[in-house]
Amino acid sequence: MSAESRFHQLLRGLATHPGAQGLIDDVALLNVGDRTLILTSDTMVEGVHYLRTDPPADIGWKLACVNLSDLAAKGAKPLGSLLNYALSGDEAWDAAFLKGLGEALNRYAMPLLGGDTVGMPSSSARSYSLTAIGEASGPLPARSSAQSGDILYTTGPVGDAGIGLNLAQADPSASGPLVEAYRRPRPRLAEGALLAPHVHAMMDVSDGLLIDAGRMADASGLRVVIDHIPLSPALEAARGASTAVQLAAARAGDDYELLFALPPAKRPPVRAIPIGRFEDGSGIRLLIDGADVPLPERLGWEH
Amino acid sequence: MSAESRFHQLLRGLATHPGAQGLIDDVALLNVGDRTLILTSDTMVEGVHYLRTDPPADIGWKLACVNLSDLAAKGAKPLGSLLNYALSGDEAWDAAFLKGLGEALNRYAMPLLGGDTVGMPSSSARSYSLTAIGEASGPLPARSSAQSGDILYTTGPVGDAGIGLNLAQADPSASGPLVEAYRRPRPRLAEGALLAPHVHAMMDVSDGLLIDAGRMADASGLRVVIDHIPLSPALEAARGASTAVQLAAARAGDDYELLFALPPAKRPPVRAIPIGRFEDGSGIRLLIDGADVPLPERLGWEH
Repeated sequence: MSAESRFHQLLRGLATHPGAQGLIDDVALLNVGDRTLILTSDTMVEGVHYLRTDPPADIGWKLACVNLSDLAAKGAKPLGSLLNYALSGDEAWDAAFLKGLGEALNRYAMPLLGGDTVGMPSSSARSYSLTAIGEASGPLPARSSAQSGDILYTTGPVGDAGIGLNLAQADPSASGPLVEAYRRPRPRLAEGALLAPHVHAMMDVSDGLLIDAGRMADASGLRVVIDHIPLSPALEAARGASTAVQLAAARAGDDYELLFALPPAKRPPVRAIPIGRFEDGSGIRLLIDGADVPLPERLGWEH
Repeated sequence: MSAESRFHQLLRGLATHPGAQGLIDDVALLNVGDRTLILTSDTMVEGVHYLRTDPPADIGWKLACVNLSDLAAKGAKPLGSLLNYALSGDEAWDAAFLKGLGEALNRYAMPLLGGDTVGMPSSSARSYSLTAIGEASGPLPARSSAQSGDILYTTGPVGDAGIGLNLAQADPSASGPLVEAYRRPRPRLAEGALLAPHVHAMMDVSDGLLIDAGRMADASGLRVVIDHIPLSPALEAARGASTAVQLAAARAGDDYELLFALPPAKRPPVRAIPIGRFEDGSGIRLLIDGADVPLPERLGWEH
């Protein structure tokens, strides 16, 4: 067990309120009167969750969107957010960060309500947190309620952001749809709201398709069979569609598509790609182009 | 105007929702059905808001309590919290931090609902954020509604934490009531709840009595006359009660007492110390032992 896993075990000892959901979901629930609030908070650390060379407006945009994606996975409506900001020492950089954050908050109608601004020793890596509050508009999809026989879908292709990160690492001035996918993810809020009343289970794909589908299967006490890795035309044009490319796409993080389970008789109410199914058992079975593929040791981004 | 002030001006441009209150209060408001939620978030940075040598359990305690103090100033009941934690690389340190945090959360009945845990480059200063959600139990005291003629009170003495910080800087193993005041502040939740229905204005003293009383006066469009700096017996025993000591206590931060304005005909429903009054005009008039004292250049902790 890693140091972080042991720390999480200690955290679970503190987070005994039922709304904490044992910290196995990405969000917490809080009942206020007859409403249910969805709470989530994500931190982005320089050099860990983004590149020092990424444009500050894109970092701000992304901080909003990783949190919005957690709300999307619950079909929740954003109500507001709180920002914890570490001044960079460079006013133009800070202003650009806020501009990108503001673009995302406006686009997805999540007001900024407050937060805290701090200075940091100049040699320190910067970190930024956003806490988002949403409201459930109906039944709340869990990641743990997929049923045997359900079809597994995503709302879009995977792997673009992973390649985009590689391109941005090699050349900070790189551009194009893959770098855009890494730097300007689009949280699936509209899709999440339409899907929430119908799905058996739903979550966002933030750490990689394989690891996240495996988590849904685990939480649901089922096996997941993945027989299709959906690639974008941009990714195929850049890298082709070999088994290695498909496997890399299935392990890449930062895609922020929704992953959901629906019974075979139901058609998804949004554009979605069937990628597999749930069956009795446990673990992950992966087929690429019809052939069984052994699982890689690292299934995705563990943090 | 400082870089941080300019950043705040940009932030206010984003935070246009009425619940953000123009970012002039320490908390945001969010109406959910017929309830009003109080939202606050504070970040503590190593070497800025705490000493590298402070015991980790005390840092965890303090992170909870600085947020709880913001809820106390609104007479709010804590509902839950979200933690953004940067792993230290030292498991025993992390465990001790959580133990102290948990002690405060238990003591003041604020459940931990979720958050995010991240790794940091090992050379970086650590920072920790907590976002607290409370619920208003009645009318919400603002800092801007003191009235001319009101008496200004605090719920306790000031300056202990400032001296405690000095002692801990000189000797990390120092102990006693002053160091305890710095490391284990007690948020005035019970007092805040009792005071909220009666006060004209209320806030917590986190940055120093002079600067915070000045903010209340400014926000209320009044002048504040401070004619008594309440010192604890422990502080007087350690440092005496000279004008210089009283002035230092009035500028010291981290006390987390409540500061409130009440009309002269009303008696405070909790133990409190009258320290001055509001009158027409603007600014701060300071009297120490009956004599006018010129205001120091730095009124408190600006951050």
